[in-house]
Amino acid sequence: MNPLLDFLLVLATLIYSYLEAFVKLFVPAKRKSVAGELVLITGAGHGVGRATAFEFAKRQSRLVLWDINKVKKEIGDVSILVNNAGVITTADLLSTQDHQIERMFEVNILAHMWTTRAFLPTMMNNNHGHIVTVASAAGHFVTSFMVAYCSSKFAAVGFHKALTEELSTLGKDGIKTSCLCPVFINTGFVKNPSTRLGKILEVDEVVEALMEGILTNQKMIFVPSFQRVGLLLERLFPERTLAVLNKLTNVKFDAVIGQRSTQ
Amino acid sequence: MNPLLDFLLVLATLIYSYLEAFVKLFVPAKRKSVAGELVLITGAGHGVGRATAFEFAKRQSRLVLWDINKVKKEIGDVSILVNNAGVITTADLLSTQDHQIERMFEVNILAHMWTTRAFLPTMMNNNHGHIVTVASAAGHFVTSFMVAYCSSKFAAVGFHKALTEELSTLGKDGIKTSCLCPVFINTGFVKNPSTRLGKILEVDEVVEALMEGILTNQKMIFVPSFQRVGLLLERLFPERTLAVLNKLTNVKFDAVIGQRSTQ
Repeated sequence: MNPLLDFLLVLATLIYSYLEAFVKLFVPAKRKSVAGELVLITGAGHGVGRATAFEFAKRQSRLVLWDINKVKKEIGDVSILVNNAGVITTADLLSTQDHQIERMFEVNILAHMWTTRAFLPTMMNNNHGHIVTVASAAGHFVTSFMVAYCSSKFAAVGFHKALTEELSTLGKDGIKTSCLCPVFINTGFVKNPSTRLGKILEVDEVVEALMEGILTNQKMIFVPSFQRVGLLLERLFPERTLAVLNKLTNVKFDAVIGQRSTQ
Repeated sequence: MNPLLDFLLVLATLIYSYLEAFVKLFVPAKRKSVAGELVLITGAGHGVGRATAFEFAKRQSRLVLWDINKVKKEIGDVSILVNNAGVITTADLLSTQDHQIERMFEVNILAHMWTTRAFLPTMMNNNHGHIVTVASAAGHFVTSFMVAYCSSKFAAVGFHKALTEELSTLGKDGIKTSCLCPVFINTGFVKNPSTRLGKILEVDEVVEALMEGILTNQKMIFVPSFQRVGLLLERLFPERTLAVLNKLTNVKFDAVIGQRSTQ
């Protein structure tokens, strides 16, 4: 292949993509129908999982609801798979017991990989489906005293990206993927979280963004969406500047494993 | 705090950091001495681990060499910890057995987290040490048919970043961290790998970059270093352009779990 031709190809794609993105600003996004679709939600017992189940129910989907202790390896005819592995214990690396590190990974990513593995063959046969990986802002940006949690959420983001790439290589364009990356949600996972970047998310806001993301086939669903700017700055700015920015955003929390701060 | 002051602070740091980086281009990097330091290497039986052990031996370090089956939870007086979890089986998600997914995570990141957890208290008491996490280019960029592998390497990168952040928050500036991210190495992990971006790495090149990175306290050691450009492009370019670029770089391999292609 000719390097000049390669360069022109990249340039043409670049211009086309930016023009397309500009046009799309003025065209409302199409939302797909999920009526009659079989939707499996793990961690459906509470929080985001529970609220998401209600949203799919409103849209006449057929629901299969699991919670973490009931994630079994069954093969079924599922077209949308949402993982949402409920409340998790977290801790800084020093106070984390060995089995807690494993458990964190199991809850945050391994169970989701096993579940995906069980349902993917059916989805691939039909070239139809949608796999939603529930990650976190912590899968992109790290926070102190959440080493094992961040690591498992990085794994979730990596899983989503690698799965997306593999499905694309295999030509399975009917199977969509989304990755949900919210900042702290008020579900009692951490106690008294606060940051200068904005208020703590409520479950409803996250589920609204998630549903919009699923129905419009968004690959990465950042809540709030300005996290994308952070990702870009992370690549552009030197380490010392990032450390100052980090200090200014002032992410704080008192303790992990708490109760919902209201109710 | 005043947003204008914040902005000025960030700007000042930014200018200072860029100036410093420019000056450093002309000043040779200082290399620390590792003579007499206790160095623990996991996966020391072969490949990068083995060659790294020789390098530390040349520099008069005291060596503790483990291989994957011998990673025990002992507390010792270790000042440099290098994980390098040898040959690993990989497979695409569909052909991966459940226990293989777990095994991949155990080998690639969980064992390293356990080991780090065992040695960190001693390092923190002395505020002295260096923790090297062996990740991969696959911890930043995904490749098809390596879903579980990529996911576990993303976890390794996340672990390194979160640990670095936590040590900084705790003021433990005597404990350094490095993360090694090489592209394919000729150790028989994949069969006949090829890419247009350059030749497959030999163990010696990787170890040379690793040693230079450790001795100069580099946080992220990319081999080859132009991966940094890829990371930036990933944030700047639209998805379609990235897909074209991806196709042009043409990363390929025949099979996983093979033998070293020479010898």
